[in-house]
Amino acid sequence: MNKVDTILYCRWVIPIEPHAKIYDNYAVIIHEGKILDVLPEAKAKEQYSSDDIQHLTDHAVLPGFVNAHTHSPMVLFKGLADDLPLMEWLNDHIWPAERKWLNDEFIADGTELAIAEMIQNGTTCFNEHFFFPEVMAKTIERNKLRACIGATIINFPTSWSQDENDGFTKFQAFYQSLPRTGLLTASLAPHAPYSVTDEMLVKINHFAGEHNLTIHMHVHETAHEVDESLEKFGKRPLRRLYDLGLLSERFQCVHMTQIDQDDVELLLETGAQVTHCPESNLKLASGYSPVDLFLKKGINVALGTDGAASNNNLDMIGELRSAALIGKTIAKSAAAVTAAQALRMATLNGAKALGLANEIGSIEKGKAADLIAINLNHYNTRPIYNPISQIVYSANNTQITDVWVAGVQLLKNQQLLLIDEQQLQAKARKWQQRLQ
Amino acid sequence: MNKVDTILYCRWVIPIEPHAKIYDNYAVIIHEGKILDVLPEAKAKEQYSSDDIQHLTDHAVLPGFVNAHTHSPMVLFKGLADDLPLMEWLNDHIWPAERKWLNDEFIADGTELAIAEMIQNGTTCFNEHFFFPEVMAKTIERNKLRACIGATIINFPTSWSQDENDGFTKFQAFYQSLPRTGLLTASLAPHAPYSVTDEMLVKINHFAGEHNLTIHMHVHETAHEVDESLEKFGKRPLRRLYDLGLLSERFQCVHMTQIDQDDVELLLETGAQVTHCPESNLKLASGYSPVDLFLKKGINVALGTDGAASNNNLDMIGELRSAALIGKTIAKSAAAVTAAQALRMATLNGAKALGLANEIGSIEKGKAADLIAINLNHYNTRPIYNPISQIVYSANNTQITDVWVAGVQLLKNQQLLLIDEQQLQAKARKWQQRLQ
Repeated sequence: MNKVDTILYCRWVIPIEPHAKIYDNYAVIIHEGKILDVLPEAKAKEQYSSDDIQHLTDHAVLPGFVNAHTHSPMVLFKGLADDLPLMEWLNDHIWPAERKWLNDEFIADGTELAIAEMIQNGTTCFNEHFFFPEVMAKTIERNKLRACIGATIINFPTSWSQDENDGFTKFQAFYQSLPRTGLLTASLAPHAPYSVTDEMLVKINHFAGEHNLTIHMHVHETAHEVDESLEKFGKRPLRRLYDLGLLSERFQCVHMTQIDQDDVELLLETGAQVTHCPESNLKLASGYSPVDLFLKKGINVALGTDGAASNNNLDMIGELRSAALIGKTIAKSAAAVTAAQALRMATLNGAKALGLANEIGSIEKGKAADLIAINLNHYNTRPIYNPISQIVYSANNTQITDVWVAGVQLLKNQQLLLIDEQQLQAKARKWQQRLQ
Repeated sequence: MNKVDTILYCRWVIPIEPHAKIYDNYAVIIHEGKILDVLPEAKAKEQYSSDDIQHLTDHAVLPGFVNAHTHSPMVLFKGLADDLPLMEWLNDHIWPAERKWLNDEFIADGTELAIAEMIQNGTTCFNEHFFFPEVMAKTIERNKLRACIGATIINFPTSWSQDENDGFTKFQAFYQSLPRTGLLTASLAPHAPYSVTDEMLVKINHFAGEHNLTIHMHVHETAHEVDESLEKFGKRPLRRLYDLGLLSERFQCVHMTQIDQDDVELLLETGAQVTHCPESNLKLASGYSPVDLFLKKGINVALGTDGAASNNNLDMIGELRSAALIGKTIAKSAAAVTAAQALRMATLNGAKALGLANEIGSIEKGKAADLIAINLNHYNTRPIYNPISQIVYSANNTQITDVWVAGVQLLKNQQLLLIDEQQLQAKARKWQQRLQ
């Protein structure tokens, strides 16, 4: 008998790789933060023993979700201003609120609230794009979630940076201070084609190449952005990024609601990644991303919630359901963007976008033990003919009962293990009173 | 002091009428099944006493949701066959399953599972369109939910009827047997323009007029349906229904994803109702209903989940969120289909569609006490700047804690009071094993 850290006996294991596979009555063996083995329950009982054996009798166990685009601290703006035209929402509400309120305390509290929400929603890794990266890093590290931190580089004054040069300098300092081990990585996060200069984009790309970092950027979010670029640069934003040399497998294009044939060819030629944020796109009436087309062409599509101010939550199950539903309608086929594809977008494709496909995103031997359990014995999800279908089309986030990151359990039977719920409530109330 | 049946002290009351209104720290007084009063908490303490006082300290209290289109027993087909082209889904899976399995036992068990799911999702009234109406009525009556039962009339053989004439005869017998008091009403439910003859439609309309009943029908669900009608009848289905005299305020057009200017004018001229099922339309890639356009024109739009086989749930909070999100994108405006409008579609507009706007759909003195409480102290919904926004864009169905229909409490602190959870699970398992 091999003694291991943790044994999970699972009604179902959905490993993501092989695609659309479901293992019945399987065990996942966790040791030293990694997945040591995935095997039938009966065999596991012969081979492994542990002081931490968990029986997930009604549960599907999956790799944790990778939220490939979010602005965590904006959770404090959730529902602050809804149902407004896009520019009024930004100019009169979100940007003034950011200028007025963003500071270390806001970032620390907002990040912690977001982390609590993400853990309870089954997110084990997220791709951040916001200000004050040191404060975010400290908060995330303390709460043992995996994240890639991008500090937003933008060419207008914010509470954190004077301009794009200041932001880039501050990002470099942050990057130098970030430990090269552990759960945190960093990425370059230029805001958008319309808010960063050519010169800065070239610098960012050079730095990313030198340090083998990903670049995480809003691209083609709205038709207005594309029109403006055509007027100012004589080309679409994606073509401009291509001409500047930025597009590669390390580059993540977030949103991509405006697509023509040239855009598709640039993505195919360079291997640049797409990150789809369906609910934010719908809520802000930005348009649709042609996900089925991308997937059929072999372009990697990850999934993100965007910030909670434009979603309004950090719920990856809700997001992947929206991706499947809207994806079918855009493709005009009920067979497009299947449940299994939606789950893959929310896990392995996200890992790939972040350059972490060898470490996370599927339940395979040797990968990190970033895992979640979803209880399917619930009025939302019965009868159960196909657990993948039930998770994607019927379950909701509160059915997620258990979460592990690198083998450390963060949620157990729906209870947060590292975060105090009363303190969280107090922090939310404090900001609510200030901002109201 | 006036002694009453029940007093609810509510952190917020969202009455729906007046539109978008939110009352802080209000009481709802329930007596003899009706809403006796709605007033500030302090005043209620002076005026009313009760043996049943409930403190809903973190909750918003709303009128219960009206699910304006569903096929309840199909909950047993939830997730049976997904991600297939529409005709393959129907021809190879759903219709054969209906032919093979539909009988009294299936209908009774399926209806009960659906009722349990609906109560837990805050639905207090639903508009049914399926077979075996007597069995459904018995099950619904026992569980004390409000419903309008339409028996599907269709011109091909089903497990319940030989053809449209047989269905119509059986519906008449059912209608004669239905008590004229209580929570149940009936409606005429011709299946769709392509599956019922002109002659039968005229008979149905005559019967509906004679008995002042609503007519509940799938109309313009797909582009194919419209094309086929143009070929066969030389006109669009809605124009054909108009020419046959069916369109009126008593007529509910379910789906309406294919709309031209003539359609809009027919709806305006006749006052016919639209029932929007966004998630089913998305999942089957049927298209979009232009809800913002309808609302701006003053056309009543109710909301339905459709059957759980094509949704895949009976979750009205999820549905109204989808309606708001997709509604903005179709209208190309983030200000279209607001949160308050989405809530109204799911409550008062539904009541209006069913001809019950004087009895249910809002929290007003004299209306039936069909109420739900949603706990907003939850990681999904904090901070709280606007409870309507949080319910529509951030909450999920499991935050619904309490449900009353005509003053009778059916859900208390998330527990079903009349339905045994263990028996429900056993029924779901039984059908899962048979159908698998």
